Amino acid sequence: MSLPPEGGTPNENIKAERQTKIFMTTPASESLPQYFTRRSEEVNQWLDSLLPKESTPPVNLHKAMRYSMFAGGKRLRPVLVLASGEALGAATDDLMPAACALEMIHTYSLIHDDLPAMDNDDLRRGRPTCHKAFGEAMAILAGDALLTQAFRVLALDAPHRDALKQLRVIGEIAKAAGTVEALIGGQVVDMESEGQTVDAATLDYIHRSKTGAMIRAAVIVGGLIAEATDEQMSKLDDYSRRIGLAFQIADDILDVTQTSEQLGKTAGKDQAASKATYPAIHGLEASKKKAHELVDEAIAIIASLGGDTQILAAIASFIVARKS
Amino acid sequence: MSLPPEGGTPNENIKAERQTKIFMTTPASESLPQYFTRRSEEVNQWLDSLLPKESTPPVNLHKAMRYSMFAGGKRLRPVLVLASGEALGAATDDLMPAACALEMIHTYSLIHDDLPAMDNDDLRRGRPTCHKAFGEAMAILAGDALLTQAFRVLALDAPHRDALKQLRVIGEIAKAAGTVEALIGGQVVDMESEGQTVDAATLDYIHRSKTGAMIRAAVIVGGLIAEATDEQMSKLDDYSRRIGLAFQIADDILDVTQTSEQLGKTAGKDQAASKATYPAIHGLEASKKKAHELVDEAIAIIASLGGDTQILAAIASFIVARKS
Repeated sequence: MSLPPEGGTPNENIKAERQTKIFMTTPASESLPQYFTRRSEEVNQWLDSLLPKESTPPVNLHKAMRYSMFAGGKRLRPVLVLASGEALGAATDDLMPAACALEMIHTYSLIHDDLPAMDNDDLRRGRPTCHKAFGEAMAILAGDALLTQAFRVLALDAPHRDALKQLRVIGEIAKAAGTVEALIGGQVVDMESEGQTVDAATLDYIHRSKTGAMIRAAVIVGGLIAEATDEQMSKLDDYSRRIGLAFQIADDILDVTQTSEQLGKTAGKDQAASKATYPAIHGLEASKKKAHELVDEAIAIIASLGGDTQILAAIASFIVARKS
Repeated sequence: MSLPPEGGTPNENIKAERQTKIFMTTPASESLPQYFTRRSEEVNQWLDSLLPKESTPPVNLHKAMRYSMFAGGKRLRPVLVLASGEALGAATDDLMPAACALEMIHTYSLIHDDLPAMDNDDLRRGRPTCHKAFGEAMAILAGDALLTQAFRVLALDAPHRDALKQLRVIGEIAKAAGTVEALIGGQVVDMESEGQTVDAATLDYIHRSKTGAMIRAAVIVGGLIAEATDEQMSKLDDYSRRIGLAFQIADDILDVTQTSEQLGKTAGKDQAASKATYPAIHGLEASKKKAHELVDEAIAIIASLGGDTQILAAIASFIVARKS
């Protein structure tokens, strides 16, 4: 199962049994890819309204921010905020600013990771990376600007009916984007591990931090905005940790098994850079098995959340079934 | 008049009349340099407690963050938060998290500005720049991490007695660190103006955005936390815009008139890079005159604020009198 990369055409190259499973857990009228397409379009409209216009000076900076922001990402993190919050009754309008802020932070991290001093990647989502299109200085600043804009949106564009709750939302997102078992820390350890022999514990740290923390924040923030009970927050936490790790394992597997064309970015890069990956340490079959176990656990946990958890379950399945 | 760079020894090479003026406007027992030294030490203790320990993994990331954070900066922005807030009766402990957050953002901006893709500077405050000491990738990430930590501190470490007010504080800081007439936008226009013929309006935009916005935010945030009236906020705004511009004009003048040793960073860089500066457009004498006029205006405005505004007046004088 794959999401439509940009144009809305589902990738047909999918295993029938997984397709059936996903279709069964989404509303009868809509497949998960259709759901993702619909929600991504909503998210994109919100992102458009929450970012400075291209015509506002400095024009090139705002062009660079929007170039990377609207490069056809899956919008997994914002969709998770929506799915988690809406499962517990939150209004879409209350969730969207946080959903968009998380995607801005995710996009900034991709721009900076792609820089020559880091992964030195020329291709992202099938297009030249931000620094290839706008130069290195502008890419650094566009990343900085998206990170800053995310917190501006959280402070000024989110609903303020419960300001204390909103401060908790900002705190959760800042922690997830930070250094300790979080986005930046994960990138540092990943970088420092290149060409090194990495043990399973270090790889877990990298995965938990670099991808896991922001995926967890998406689910948690949805719960916070929906005023989930402590018990529900605990379940969202358990669910999010499992899908976060499953997502990263699936990513590692895709890097080994897919072509660059299929991925929209350079394939085999992890291996070429001697990067620590789940298949490299645990083997491909064990990695696939682990990812599916995590997803099954996540689905079992979320079933007892209360509220309508069909979408959350379907997203868990999608995470290991996607092709890009 | 100069602040002690690190060791607490005031620079003695000062004009007597300006020294007298500054000493007269600070408490009888303490000169402004002594005041700055004392408050900087307080700020440094708070910064130390608000940043991850060096021993916490990833160790090199936290070392890089602290290396740049404790490189002996003047702490002008945090001291402005304290001076502005305390003038109107706010408690130091309530002001410190925002004061430190502004300094974290200022430090991140210096780290990124110094990068090879931007100003390519090897020296900052008399020491190798962050990327010279830790490598380019780590410097990019240390900058990202300080920006992120600033918002974490604002959300989680600041007092929450009035959460709505705290959201306004976060919003003001995010705006000042942003793209439109703000920190990042100013850096972009500055960068794009290198080697170009720059008119006075563009130079004003650069100064207002790159330095002015964060200096203004420091003063404004102090007022917000002190629950200043609308009239007081308006005066703080007027004061801050004047000292912000005066500060940048003084910086441009110092780049022309001081040696690298005196500045602790490469002197004459603006000219070498054909950067737009106030002296280059308006001449050195007119620039000095303008800076002093702005300071006189700022002092006149702040005199009617109400509260104890001696320090705010002294800081205005210091801004054009400093030697580094």
